[in-house]
Amino acid sequence: MQKNIMNFDNVYINNWASTVGKKEYEGPLRNTFDAYDPDEYFGCDSFEKAESEMVRRNINLLCGKANIEFDNIDLITGGDLVNQCVSTSFAISNTNIPFLGLYGACSTMIEALICGSTFIKSNNVNNAICFASSHFCTAERQYRFPLEYGSLKTPTSQHTVTGTGAFLISNNANKIKIKNAVIGRIIDNEITDQNNMGAAMAGAAVDTIMRFVRYCNNDIDLIVTGDLGIEGHEIASSLLKLEGMDFSNKFLDCGMLIYDTKRQKMLSGGSGCGCIASVSAGHIMHLLETNKIKNVLLVGTGALLNTNSVLEKRHIPAIAHAVYITSEE
Amino acid sequence: MQKNIMNFDNVYINNWASTVGKKEYEGPLRNTFDAYDPDEYFGCDSFEKAESEMVRRNINLLCGKANIEFDNIDLITGGDLVNQCVSTSFAISNTNIPFLGLYGACSTMIEALICGSTFIKSNNVNNAICFASSHFCTAERQYRFPLEYGSLKTPTSQHTVTGTGAFLISNNANKIKIKNAVIGRIIDNEITDQNNMGAAMAGAAVDTIMRFVRYCNNDIDLIVTGDLGIEGHEIASSLLKLEGMDFSNKFLDCGMLIYDTKRQKMLSGGSGCGCIASVSAGHIMHLLETNKIKNVLLVGTGALLNTNSVLEKRHIPAIAHAVYITSEE
Repeated sequence: MQKNIMNFDNVYINNWASTVGKKEYEGPLRNTFDAYDPDEYFGCDSFEKAESEMVRRNINLLCGKANIEFDNIDLITGGDLVNQCVSTSFAISNTNIPFLGLYGACSTMIEALICGSTFIKSNNVNNAICFASSHFCTAERQYRFPLEYGSLKTPTSQHTVTGTGAFLISNNANKIKIKNAVIGRIIDNEITDQNNMGAAMAGAAVDTIMRFVRYCNNDIDLIVTGDLGIEGHEIASSLLKLEGMDFSNKFLDCGMLIYDTKRQKMLSGGSGCGCIASVSAGHIMHLLETNKIKNVLLVGTGALLNTNSVLEKRHIPAIAHAVYITSEE
Repeated sequence: MQKNIMNFDNVYINNWASTVGKKEYEGPLRNTFDAYDPDEYFGCDSFEKAESEMVRRNINLLCGKANIEFDNIDLITGGDLVNQCVSTSFAISNTNIPFLGLYGACSTMIEALICGSTFIKSNNVNNAICFASSHFCTAERQYRFPLEYGSLKTPTSQHTVTGTGAFLISNNANKIKIKNAVIGRIIDNEITDQNNMGAAMAGAAVDTIMRFVRYCNNDIDLIVTGDLGIEGHEIASSLLKLEGMDFSNKFLDCGMLIYDTKRQKMLSGGSGCGCIASVSAGHIMHLLETNKIKNVLLVGTGALLNTNSVLEKRHIPAIAHAVYITSEE
C-alpha cells in the first residue's frame, strides 16, 4: 500500500518574505506583502532578468528579517516557470548555498516546502530556504504570446502573478510548524484548453485533499489551493461535494484572493508559482501568526504542459502537493 | 557553518534498469543496458513522445525486474531536459505514484537519488523510483537547432545521449547502499559558449568532489562525473591537480564512456540527463554488483542555461550533485 501522509515532528517555519509586482500590490492583500516594485522590469533590461532580480531581493529580504547569513543556510529548494528554470538559477547563483531545483509547475512552492521539511526531518540539514516565483510577462511570453501581440483572453483564463514567496524553515522550535504533507499524483482529466487551467487542475487538487482527509485525522480551519481561480474552484468544490465533503467557506483559493477580480478585470483570477508563494508567505502566515486560524492545508496546484504539448493538442495533466501547517500559542 | 555531507544509513539500491537509443547501443557499453530501440521515434510520431515512451518502458522494465507493482511504490522522483519537463510528466502520468518533479539539468539523475534517499531516511516513504532521461532529437530542437537544419558542430560540443536510467531504492537491506551525498552549489565560471558545456560544468564538478573529499573520509575506488566530456574532464582534472588531488585513472566521465568517440565521431563525448542515468544504471551498477569496484562517487553535472539565456550572451552557471555508493559482500 502506498504511503499517503508524510509526518514531520521537528520542522518549523521561522520566517517568511514575499515580494510582488504592481497589480498584486493594488489588490486586496497589499498590506500582507513585504515588498513590491511598481516597475515590472524590476530595474532590469528583460522580464526574465526582472524575475530573477525579484527572487534575489526577496531571499535577501528573508535572510535580513531572519538575521541569518547565507553561510549558515544548509539548503535552498525552489523553482519557477521559465524554460529550464533559469529565473531561479540566475537569482541564486551568487548565494553559494547548496541548491535543489524543482519543477512542479504552479505547485512548486509546496513541493519546495515538502522537500525542505524532509531534508530537515532526515537530520541531514538544519535549515532550508524554500521558494517559488512567477512573473506575468515571462509567463505570457513562455506559454502564450509575447505581450506586444495584445492577444485577447477568454473568460476562464487566469492572470499569472508577478510575485515570489520564500520561507526559512528549520529544526528550531517555533510557533508555526509544518506537521504533515501529501505528495501529489499526476491526474489527467483530459482537458486540452490551456485557457482553462482551473479545470485541468481541479481533479488533482481534489485527489490530494481527499487523500489528506481520508488518511489524516487532523482539524482543518482552512483549505487554500494555489491557483484554481474562480472556474477551477467551482469545479473542485463540486467534485468535493460528490465525495461527500462540503468545506464551503473554509475552502479558498489564492488565485481568487490575490486580486479584486472584478475591479482589476482579472477574469478567473491569479495563477503561477508566485500566486500561492506570495499569498502563503504573506496573508496566510499573517492569519496563523495573529491566531486568526490555528491550522491550514495549503494545496499547490500545477498544470504539467508546455507550449508544444498544447499545440499538439495533448491533454494537460496536473498535480497537487499539500502541506498541513499549524500554529500553537 | 553549512552542512556539506548528507549521511544515509538505511538506503539501499534494490534494482535498476536502463534503456537507450541506437547510437548508445552501438557504443562500448552495449552489453550493460537492459533495452534499446533502433528507431529514434520509439514507435511514436514525435521525438518528445518518443522520450516519454522510452521512460515509460524503462520504468515498467524496472518494476518487472524488481517484481513490484506501481501500487506498492511510495514515491517517484525525476526529470528531463525538455521545456517544463513534459517528457517526464507524460511518461508517468498513468502510474498513479506520488511524484516530485526535479530540474537539475544533466545533474537530475543524482538529484533524484538524493531526494529519494532523503525521503527514505525520513521514514516517510519505504521506497522510491529515481530516474532521469534525455533524447538527442528533443535536446537538439530544444537547445540548438532542429535536426533538419543539419547544423555543424564545434570540436568541444557533445552529443546528447538518447537514454534513461531508473533505480528502485528502499529501506530493504541489500548489497548496494547509498551512503552519502553532496548537494551542489551553483558555480558560475563565466563561460558563455553553449558548445563548451564541459568547461561550464568542470568548476561545479570540482567544487562538489572537493567538498566530499574534505568533509568525508571515505575510500574512493572510482569518481564518475556525469557528462563533462573530453574537454570538461581535462579541465576538471587540471583543477583537481591545482587543489592537490590527482585521481588520474580513478576519475572517469560517463560522457567519455558511453561512446567510442573517435569511431562514432562524437567529438567531445556524450551529454544529457540520460548520460549518467543510463551509464550508472548499467555499467556502474555492473561494476559494483560483480565486485569489480567496492565504492563509487557518482557526480551528476548540470549546465543551467536555456536558449534565451544563451542568445542574451549570459553566463552558463553550473551545478554538480554527488552520491557515494558502496557495495558490501
